[in-house]
Amino acid sequence: MRTRITELLGIEHPIFQGAMAWIADASLASAVSNAGGLGILAGGSASADVMARQIDEAKARTDKPFALNIMLMSPHADDLAQLAIDKGVQAVTTGAGSPAAYMASWRDAGIKVIPVVASTALARRMEKCGADAVIAEGGESGGHIGELNTMALVPQVVQTVRIPVLAAGGIASGRQLAAALLLGAEGVQVGTRFLTVDECTVHENYKRKVLKAKDSDTIVTGRIAGHPVRGLKNKFAREARSAELKEALDGAEQELRHAGSLRRAAIDGDLETGSFMAGEVAGMVHERGSAAEVVQGLMAEAETILNWDAEQLLAHNETRKNL
Amino acid sequence: MRTRITELLGIEHPIFQGAMAWIADASLASAVSNAGGLGILAGGSASADVMARQIDEAKARTDKPFALNIMLMSPHADDLAQLAIDKGVQAVTTGAGSPAAYMASWRDAGIKVIPVVASTALARRMEKCGADAVIAEGGESGGHIGELNTMALVPQVVQTVRIPVLAAGGIASGRQLAAALLLGAEGVQVGTRFLTVDECTVHENYKRKVLKAKDSDTIVTGRIAGHPVRGLKNKFAREARSAELKEALDGAEQELRHAGSLRRAAIDGDLETGSFMAGEVAGMVHERGSAAEVVQGLMAEAETILNWDAEQLLAHNETRKNL
Repeated sequence: MRTRITELLGIEHPIFQGAMAWIADASLASAVSNAGGLGILAGGSASADVMARQIDEAKARTDKPFALNIMLMSPHADDLAQLAIDKGVQAVTTGAGSPAAYMASWRDAGIKVIPVVASTALARRMEKCGADAVIAEGGESGGHIGELNTMALVPQVVQTVRIPVLAAGGIASGRQLAAALLLGAEGVQVGTRFLTVDECTVHENYKRKVLKAKDSDTIVTGRIAGHPVRGLKNKFAREARSAELKEALDGAEQELRHAGSLRRAAIDGDLETGSFMAGEVAGMVHERGSAAEVVQGLMAEAETILNWDAEQLLAHNETRKNL
Repeated sequence: MRTRITELLGIEHPIFQGAMAWIADASLASAVSNAGGLGILAGGSASADVMARQIDEAKARTDKPFALNIMLMSPHADDLAQLAIDKGVQAVTTGAGSPAAYMASWRDAGIKVIPVVASTALARRMEKCGADAVIAEGGESGGHIGELNTMALVPQVVQTVRIPVLAAGGIASGRQLAAALLLGAEGVQVGTRFLTVDECTVHENYKRKVLKAKDSDTIVTGRIAGHPVRGLKNKFAREARSAELKEALDGAEQELRHAGSLRRAAIDGDLETGSFMAGEVAGMVHERGSAAEVVQGLMAEAETILNWDAEQLLAHNETRKNL
């Protein structure tokens, strides 16, 4: 499937793998890139040294394009921005703000810049300062979320910019990929579905938590403080929710509570005090498989559905046959 | 377009008009039904006497099917449930809970029952107690919202039940209607887009607020109290947000603040102290028109898009040509 996104990056399928901090490492990213999508290394709050090793390892495992995601609120953001240039990474995606300050250097270095946006205003600003594309991410997603949700956000971002738009948030099946394209997207970013693939090195407890999740098993914490984050329900998340009301008025720092919580989930598999970020689609992720199987499965299902006419589609909806 | 929903209700197009309290009256509902969709009278917190008059007026204006929506938390819910039977209304939709208690009487009376659900658990319960279909409503919608959002909710509900599923939340264009069908829905419910139609009797100030809204102009209040509601930003909404933190801990009643706020918006057009419920798609509603034009426009755009193959779709996305 050829779109401006596949052409822009020289990849086969218009599927990005979401940058999940402590999780999206060289193993996962290279597997997704080898499968024809765009693997993405999550910079998170890691140092340039750590990410340099990840980039080197990814290059050893794949000769296909991959990206570095930079969380702009990280104290290491400047270093990672330079690292991307030094290492000749093909693309950078960004979250938690505007990468305008780095844009000129990246473009001079020939790096493709694709910021994650959660509003038309940020999308417009990103196009103005030279982004090659944007990822419009709705609140269905895991991790840090914006105010808008995918079905409403994607068409409005598409109407706002001329650069290509990818849809993220709630994409775990070919049907959802196809629906995103109908909303005007030219690619998708998938996060949660990749948590359970073989090449994802996250702790087995994390994978199991996703596999047995129901639709109602995610919870958003941090809304009161203005930094909403979606993850799977557990003791940690429930306590965070109870506490945030009190902490918001007391002005108490939530940092102690949250420090290391993501690492405790992803690396240690600590079910009680870990923070298991995942999207609303966790309730429909019931399988493992290789990254290649997931990518191929998404594409095959999406292509089948897109080539149905209206009658065929409705006949399938009526009978609920599995594809 | 024939689906199990059009067949179930004897309507031409699988489009329901959302039940917006103080807004969805006989004028709007009959116009949507005359246009081939399913108009819905919003029971809100109105008495049976008030709704009896609305039903009579709707019957005078259209001989096509229409529905009564019952807000199950209303003190008049029992009376409205009986009214639907007495008046021979063809269908009932419900919100804010489970209508299980009324199901047997409605079914005996031949009334089609279509509850609004925001989780797979409620969808399953509704199917078990005899619902004819469910409306899976994501958090993009205006008014009272659930925890899940459309792109993730609809496929999971579709996987859970065998009865037809309508999608709601973020549907204001043919592209979004088509996307909803790709997710497995057999119909859609549209709310915000109908606020600006000619036959909608809401105050002109309300219509103007919708017409000039940007994507980021809705705000959710009431999350802390567990009753999240989405509406357009204004002084009332901002004060409610500031206050709910304090009120949650004080246990102070928010009722005084909210009493009459919806009426003040819809009837009085009170920009300061009214509550202007609307969905995230308010930012993409820039036109008025008749209900018939909206229904026909949605269908025409959806049918065009659904009959494209993948290549045609992507070519259109790339050039961003208007349909």
